[in-house]
Amino acid sequence: MRNVAIIGYGLTKFGKREGSLRDLAAEAGKSTLESIPNLDRSEIKGFFLTTTDGEPYVTASVAENLGLKPALSAKLENLCASGGMGITVAYGAVASGIVDVCMVLGVEKMSHLKIAPPMEWDFTRGGIMPPAVWGSMYAQKHMREFGTREEDLALVSVKNHRNSSMNPFAQFQKPVTIEEVMKSRPIVSPLKLYDCTAKTDGAAAVVLTNEELARKYTDSPVWITGTGQSSLGASFGNVNPQYTTWPAVANASRDAFRTSHTTPEDIDIAELHDAFTINEIIEYEDAGFVEKGKGGQFIREGQSEIGGKIPVNTNGGLIGAGHPIGATGVAQSIEVVQQLRGEAGKRQVGSAEVGFTLNLSASVSTASVIVYGRKQRSGYS
Amino acid sequence: MRNVAIIGYGLTKFGKREGSLRDLAAEAGKSTLESIPNLDRSEIKGFFLTTTDGEPYVTASVAENLGLKPALSAKLENLCASGGMGITVAYGAVASGIVDVCMVLGVEKMSHLKIAPPMEWDFTRGGIMPPAVWGSMYAQKHMREFGTREEDLALVSVKNHRNSSMNPFAQFQKPVTIEEVMKSRPIVSPLKLYDCTAKTDGAAAVVLTNEELARKYTDSPVWITGTGQSSLGASFGNVNPQYTTWPAVANASRDAFRTSHTTPEDIDIAELHDAFTINEIIEYEDAGFVEKGKGGQFIREGQSEIGGKIPVNTNGGLIGAGHPIGATGVAQSIEVVQQLRGEAGKRQVGSAEVGFTLNLSASVSTASVIVYGRKQRSGYS
Repeated sequence: MRNVAIIGYGLTKFGKREGSLRDLAAEAGKSTLESIPNLDRSEIKGFFLTTTDGEPYVTASVAENLGLKPALSAKLENLCASGGMGITVAYGAVASGIVDVCMVLGVEKMSHLKIAPPMEWDFTRGGIMPPAVWGSMYAQKHMREFGTREEDLALVSVKNHRNSSMNPFAQFQKPVTIEEVMKSRPIVSPLKLYDCTAKTDGAAAVVLTNEELARKYTDSPVWITGTGQSSLGASFGNVNPQYTTWPAVANASRDAFRTSHTTPEDIDIAELHDAFTINEIIEYEDAGFVEKGKGGQFIREGQSEIGGKIPVNTNGGLIGAGHPIGATGVAQSIEVVQQLRGEAGKRQVGSAEVGFTLNLSASVSTASVIVYGRKQRSGYS
Repeated sequence: MRNVAIIGYGLTKFGKREGSLRDLAAEAGKSTLESIPNLDRSEIKGFFLTTTDGEPYVTASVAENLGLKPALSAKLENLCASGGMGITVAYGAVASGIVDVCMVLGVEKMSHLKIAPPMEWDFTRGGIMPPAVWGSMYAQKHMREFGTREEDLALVSVKNHRNSSMNPFAQFQKPVTIEEVMKSRPIVSPLKLYDCTAKTDGAAAVVLTNEELARKYTDSPVWITGTGQSSLGASFGNVNPQYTTWPAVANASRDAFRTSHTTPEDIDIAELHDAFTINEIIEYEDAGFVEKGKGGQFIREGQSEIGGKIPVNTNGGLIGAGHPIGATGVAQSIEVVQQLRGEAGKRQVGSAEVGFTLNLSASVSTASVIVYGRKQRSGYS
């Protein structure tokens, strides 16, 4: 199989946006095309739209709006992990040679929704349990079991808002203090407003190609060196019976490290799925960056800050940058690409060689991990 | 890249079915697992659900019902070509080595709908144009330009109903006469009821694996030897300005023949996308089986009958077997696998070595072609 690189990207401002889903998609797509001046749009032979939008054939409308006439094309959905799964599918399509150049465009329009609409999935579980309820249970047990403090959760929010204040595309542009987080409106104890993601409109896109073509389009390709995924089911209780250990994250991370021939020590920058602040703390652990139970300490010691041991969510994460469901995983990849290329502006972590993204769905029942490098992978195991 | 084979399949009876979309999916999935007794469900590491159903995360519910814990997983949608595109995406995921064993499960539940629901796509075109209107225009121009007769259209329906009467999973189990077709209720001239597909509930699934593993699971793997796709846009007029020549079909067929190192003469059995009878006639031409304008003659001479030069739609096609949107392309692949394995019962065409499927979307704006062989492809170009 061929090595595959990301050669360009574009995104919209995240937040409450006017215009339709198709308008947002067109904005991110156009910006992506402009990021690769040597690429003619006729060369884009794969096109995946990642979104939870239920409208059939919206992929074809978006492609048409962008002037694309791809070969392989489809909408791809895996709830909040749609973007990560979409990039992985595109990676397979390019690595196998089905297509040479492939765009993945994630998009979501949520600001018009009063609440996140209940899904049939909820009813198959016996009732509706808003995500913050899961988050609350995970947080309570982690606090009880490992001494994690409410202030540790708040520090994640403070860090991610500080990072998003340096990201011109982020939904939240203002830093918050630990006091502001601690005093923000209670949602489900111990989670407060600033511990949670908001509703976000937005779109983000990347273009992938193979090793024969990458240098034709850019001097700074960012290689996908490994991937891992795990889809353990659709039920909260069955999938994470211990609450504070997330097997999907551990499985996907292990496979991504194995296929990329890296270890957690090699990672210079990570984008984790901070749907709630507690997520980021548990993910430090289950991705393998710290021992189980040491996540609170990691954020307290500033290890996940820009300048720390492994800067995490330098774009602001889902809490600071926003969480436009189908676009989230794509935006995570874009942040890694920007950091590895030295294009991250005020958020730049210095010289980063290896990056990591973790994109999750639905009470951590599905995980998608991608590892990226400035250097090509030497072999595939 | 690795060679990839289909190693098992299963489907539900097509037609008006009780039960939910998830019930139908479970039935086809279970039947597929039973078709590969040596395969433990834990080995299925890729899972794609192809459907137009808009419900988020239904893929995870279906996987859970089947006892699957895949790695890579997503819902995949490209309207009526969802199945063909889904199998192609799975082919890439297996060929590239991201996953070794992958299930593609197509499913649709339509019988409860009074009419096919208008799509936002229609409104972006300026209004609603039911598919039969396109079919009518294609048919009228083909008749005017090439002397194709209403009776030629009817012969397609007669053939496909005869074939479906030998397919225990087909929606329509009774043969029809040419008189019955000609006298059936007018829809949009010259198309009558029996020239059109009906609403269908149903599900169909296949499992793909690579060349290292295929023989572990079956003595009769059917290899995917090439693929081609073309997505030219979402608009009827722009995509097929000449009405009787369908560039998406020609593009996708050309690429599939090129990548499989075959020519139209090599094809022993073809499943074409007969959304309307006129489609099958134009597809004989644009796939390359006959010259432009000779499609009517091909059906008149019985060349697409079982026993003819290239048996087409031996399972009954969309008109006879049914057209459960997201499952249709998967069912086409299953028919080819059955024919190449000699498992097609009364419909068996004799010894078939090379098969061809063509799956389309939305007024032939998107096409997906797959070529299959009893022998592995020798190289990839």
